[in-house]
Amino acid sequence: MAMMALVLGDTAELSTDEPVPERAAGEALVRVRVSGVCDTDLQLARGYMGFRGVPGHEFVGDVVAHDDGAWVGKRVVADINAGCGICAECTRFGGHHCGDRTVLGIAGRSGAFAELLAVPARCLVEVPEAVSDDVAVFAEPLAAALHVLDELDTLERAGAERRAVVLGDGKLGQLIARAIASQGVQTTLVGRHAHKLELARAAGVETYLDGALPDARRRAPLVVEATGSEGGLAEALRVVAPRGTVVLKTTVAAELTVDLAPVVIHEVRLVGSRCGDMQRAVETLASGAVDPLPLVEARYPLARGLEALEHAGRRGALKVLIDVSGAAER
Amino acid sequence: MAMMALVLGDTAELSTDEPVPERAAGEALVRVRVSGVCDTDLQLARGYMGFRGVPGHEFVGDVVAHDDGAWVGKRVVADINAGCGICAECTRFGGHHCGDRTVLGIAGRSGAFAELLAVPARCLVEVPEAVSDDVAVFAEPLAAALHVLDELDTLERAGAERRAVVLGDGKLGQLIARAIASQGVQTTLVGRHAHKLELARAAGVETYLDGALPDARRRAPLVVEATGSEGGLAEALRVVAPRGTVVLKTTVAAELTVDLAPVVIHEVRLVGSRCGDMQRAVETLASGAVDPLPLVEARYPLARGLEALEHAGRRGALKVLIDVSGAAER
Repeated sequence: MAMMALVLGDTAELSTDEPVPERAAGEALVRVRVSGVCDTDLQLARGYMGFRGVPGHEFVGDVVAHDDGAWVGKRVVADINAGCGICAECTRFGGHHCGDRTVLGIAGRSGAFAELLAVPARCLVEVPEAVSDDVAVFAEPLAAALHVLDELDTLERAGAERRAVVLGDGKLGQLIARAIASQGVQTTLVGRHAHKLELARAAGVETYLDGALPDARRRAPLVVEATGSEGGLAEALRVVAPRGTVVLKTTVAAELTVDLAPVVIHEVRLVGSRCGDMQRAVETLASGAVDPLPLVEARYPLARGLEALEHAGRRGALKVLIDVSGAAER
Repeated sequence: MAMMALVLGDTAELSTDEPVPERAAGEALVRVRVSGVCDTDLQLARGYMGFRGVPGHEFVGDVVAHDDGAWVGKRVVADINAGCGICAECTRFGGHHCGDRTVLGIAGRSGAFAELLAVPARCLVEVPEAVSDDVAVFAEPLAAALHVLDELDTLERAGAERRAVVLGDGKLGQLIARAIASQGVQTTLVGRHAHKLELARAAGVETYLDGALPDARRRAPLVVEATGSEGGLAEALRVVAPRGTVVLKTTVAAELTVDLAPVVIHEVRLVGSRCGDMQRAVETLASGAVDPLPLVEARYPLARGLEALEHAGRRGALKVLIDVSGAAER
């Protein structure tokens, strides 16, 4: 059986005869409704991690095959990390750090810019009816964003103020700022684009243009670096309070030159953060505490997936969605 | 009044007519018995932080003046961070992160390579009689080393194994390895010098030569980077387990070029660590749990302090002590 998919090889191409992924034992086959384009997809398209195949890891879709028939027809999102399920890391971290894991659309497993995908059944999370497809597709990046809140809890237990500064007004920074603010935390977003800061303000986030952060907002216990730029970490180290935490959300593919002396002198924690808890993300979306819809900038049918990638790669682009469901009816 | 002191100006010089520090209200005047040379002193001598004056922050001495007469004559060590005592940081961190702090022999305050020094009375910690001068002088670096144990406690609460790998067999790495091992933690030290690894083994620490760390010791929940070299952090990131912690103990003065992608992908914590709890360090030394004496490589009278610095700067040198008490009787 063949399907339509975006495929990364030497270049990115649209294929109409990509083989449908085979469903192994314990896996589910999911018909994709909507996918979201993430910066990681753009990096993969530029050769990051040497990935070849179908990219895409943000999606919502319908289960079409499952060992347990009760799941068939359910609308789902999924944890993208498919671990072996039996090693020590899988036991502790639910597949996120399994040495043998595949990662949907990123490493060793075909992704969501396709009509159908296969994922381990244990990765599925059902989406409540009240959550629309366009909202549900944000579950994966929101899970990662919510992960930041655990750091804030740790800081608070150590006596720190409950406030955070997010650097970067791109789609990830915006989502993280919304996630933090939704928990009643005093949240400040710093970015370069007045119109994007406007979006964040509408969601109850305080904002400043790059370079205009007042002293009263510096020495923040929690700083999230989501600029994706080389200077982001250095700026985060200037903004964070002594014994505070800098969360690194973006994998800058290039090597960084950075003066880590301030990390030692101010006894700062630098915490890498990648994926989060999908169940928590779906619950947060269902509660309405975070509304991601203002972050949608454009949508393309899968048949125009290459345009979607091109659009997402434009400087300053917010979230680009890919409508996959329509592809089946072509 | 004048005294003998090592003084950093354009060059390091021995002075016999350095003015005795004035004791401000709330401060104690201490007659130094023994000082220890730290790599930070060598960096200061090379111009780090633009410090001019008397360096030296590891010491043991006798109180000769104090607002509370009961302290006079007591043998003491001291927390080197002298905060304002009233700001939010002082309240939470005891002066270690006060924006207005002076740091003994490092920033804004004359240090311990001198016959006399002044420190805030609240920084003093009395040394029990059973602890010799040569042992007590290790209180400051041991305090910093013990700080690492807090990270291990945090990891253990999160379900990690109780084991650690220390990179670097210099005096700091050795002390940290001893401090961790003294708490019953399975501790591995990696270094370049067979004779130094031998010292660590005698203290109950498992050791490997650089490059020979077996797979069974990799994926360690806690890795301490104490090599002071550029490659140390990259190696630490290769050795640490997913969601593990890398403690940075050395301030490499130069900017580092480092690929932080593994920090994000493996969700590693990078924690800067500088100073620790002096009271805890003195108690640990008094208990005999850590014996620092095998780390003493040489001792010089203060009058030969320049030789002491030169010796401490030799590649691979362990701890060099400066005998100050004799200077008074010249």
